[in-house]
Amino acid sequence: MSGADDARWMAAALALAERGRGRTAPNPNVGCVIVKSGRVVGRGWTQPGGRPHAEAMALAQAGAESRGATCYTTLEPCAHRSERGPACTDLLIEAGVARVVVALGDPDPRTDGEGMARLRAAGIEVASGFGADQARRSMAGFLTRRALGRPHVTLKLALSLDGALAMADGRSRWITGDEARAHTHLERARHDAILVGRGTFEADTPRLDVRLPGLEDRSPHRLLLSSHQPKGMHDANSWCGSDLDLYSGWAWVGQRALSAVSVSDYLMVEGGAHTAASFLAADLVDRLLLYRAPILVGDGRTLPDIGLADLADAHRRWTLIDSRQLGSDRLEVYERARKD
Amino acid sequence: MSGADDARWMAAALALAERGRGRTAPNPNVGCVIVKSGRVVGRGWTQPGGRPHAEAMALAQAGAESRGATCYTTLEPCAHRSERGPACTDLLIEAGVARVVVALGDPDPRTDGEGMARLRAAGIEVASGFGADQARRSMAGFLTRRALGRPHVTLKLALSLDGALAMADGRSRWITGDEARAHTHLERARHDAILVGRGTFEADTPRLDVRLPGLEDRSPHRLLLSSHQPKGMHDANSWCGSDLDLYSGWAWVGQRALSAVSVSDYLMVEGGAHTAASFLAADLVDRLLLYRAPILVGDGRTLPDIGLADLADAHRRWTLIDSRQLGSDRLEVYERARKD
Repeated sequence: MSGADDARWMAAALALAERGRGRTAPNPNVGCVIVKSGRVVGRGWTQPGGRPHAEAMALAQAGAESRGATCYTTLEPCAHRSERGPACTDLLIEAGVARVVVALGDPDPRTDGEGMARLRAAGIEVASGFGADQARRSMAGFLTRRALGRPHVTLKLALSLDGALAMADGRSRWITGDEARAHTHLERARHDAILVGRGTFEADTPRLDVRLPGLEDRSPHRLLLSSHQPKGMHDANSWCGSDLDLYSGWAWVGQRALSAVSVSDYLMVEGGAHTAASFLAADLVDRLLLYRAPILVGDGRTLPDIGLADLADAHRRWTLIDSRQLGSDRLEVYERARKD
Repeated sequence: MSGADDARWMAAALALAERGRGRTAPNPNVGCVIVKSGRVVGRGWTQPGGRPHAEAMALAQAGAESRGATCYTTLEPCAHRSERGPACTDLLIEAGVARVVVALGDPDPRTDGEGMARLRAAGIEVASGFGADQARRSMAGFLTRRALGRPHVTLKLALSLDGALAMADGRSRWITGDEARAHTHLERARHDAILVGRGTFEADTPRLDVRLPGLEDRSPHRLLLSSHQPKGMHDANSWCGSDLDLYSGWAWVGQRALSAVSVSDYLMVEGGAHTAASFLAADLVDRLLLYRAPILVGDGRTLPDIGLADLADAHRRWTLIDSRQLGSDRLEVYERARKD
């Protein structure tokens, strides 16, 4: 098996992992393929709610074909048994796989290296680190919650070439075009909560749902950020059931609770300018989604103070990881630069 | 000779045309190659000051090899004799070229089709329209002056992702990096005048010269746009000699004379925000040069009012024609959208 083959099969596992994104919390969205003699015999991804795990699903599909096969998984197989299911390491050992390729170690203290150690002890060849960067991106919500105790935050801004989020009087329909808006809907489906500020909530009464064929059921929780809790609207952070529907599907997040949104692993901040600035000033934005229209507005409503003291401090914070044309608009995706 | 060959040779002529850019006014910067049996036998471009013409230079280089050759030229050869030199059509006929390929007809009323007609009458095969778009771009200064009686205007903006041209207090060092600034110097060499507003003139006392090895002599005229003429500074539009050096190399342009800058065919507007807005509001910008740093500033100094009444009016005005990475910054070049 060559390194190029390993990279190719891991890419397939990473693609499967996307299927669970935004639906598996508190579990990570893992992807898995089982390959025998250059052929995929099993595919799996973490199911909605977090179980079954990706490996369990792929092994079930592969059946007896698992014996002597290679398992590619985007996260180290879990080593802990749970009342919700057996440990994936045990399942892999029982199934008789010959080799396990892992993109990323599991930071969960119940696994954290233990999964790979146990596989090796059972005589299985283990390789790790293939596609680690993509796996980190793919499970960003899980990893951010593990490391920082808060969701992975994407800030979406639709703006003109000169940075206008709206005209001076607030009009913002439309800066970007149909294709950019359709892409926003796709991004919503990849998040489990969307947040707006009071101004956007009251002015636009946005539905913030996913209006894409086949993805209607992927509409995330809707959160309102404001200093005062609207009467009758549930506090998102004291929510502990599945019913967020006290205020037509909205829940409240207080200004001081920015970093502690507990209902979400993947939070998308959709506006407006002051809400965006609050998250930026608190250094809570992990990913920027910029939809840029090829227009100049002039005297527009732009991003307010984000607490920048000096231009030098603004540099080396963002890395461009993707850009593409959406109709006449340009999408650019930036990630928080990694500190090396 | 195939169409692919024609396109390839015309591209070579267009590349040569760039050598004269910003130095040939009031003549167009034309490029020319003479090709015989698949081999270039002569190359020419309009010389500084406008003479010799590109075809004359290429024919002189080709000598007797011109007989039976094909001449590729980015503009229709001139049909008018001048005290400064013979008509290029006469030179081509005398040299015995077999075929002339032209990118663009010459709008000069003294030629305007007459050049091609005269070549055809002499039995020379004439083809036109190859690379017309690139030729239009290449001679934009000449064509804009012919059509609109004003220079071709490039507006340069260096800005952050959120559209900040500077911090709120005016600090703009540095938004973009070394590579972007070096590229700005290269762009200066492609213009024959650079204009800034009073604020930039007084705050930065910019040199606005070309600090690139081998291009130091390409530094364009420097113009100050302001409502009042500084005492002792020459009026750029009543200037009629070669000496602009009354005020350490600067000349003045009045606010009302925006559209009538006569010393330049290629004008580059470099700042600040209010000067940029003046040109945009007057619909005098033909090309946008955006240097975008991957930073967020917040509460920045952004583009002021440009007279936009409705967002719908902002669309379909700009076409992206080039973009490239310059260090960590992104250059985007937009052109005024052509009305079809």
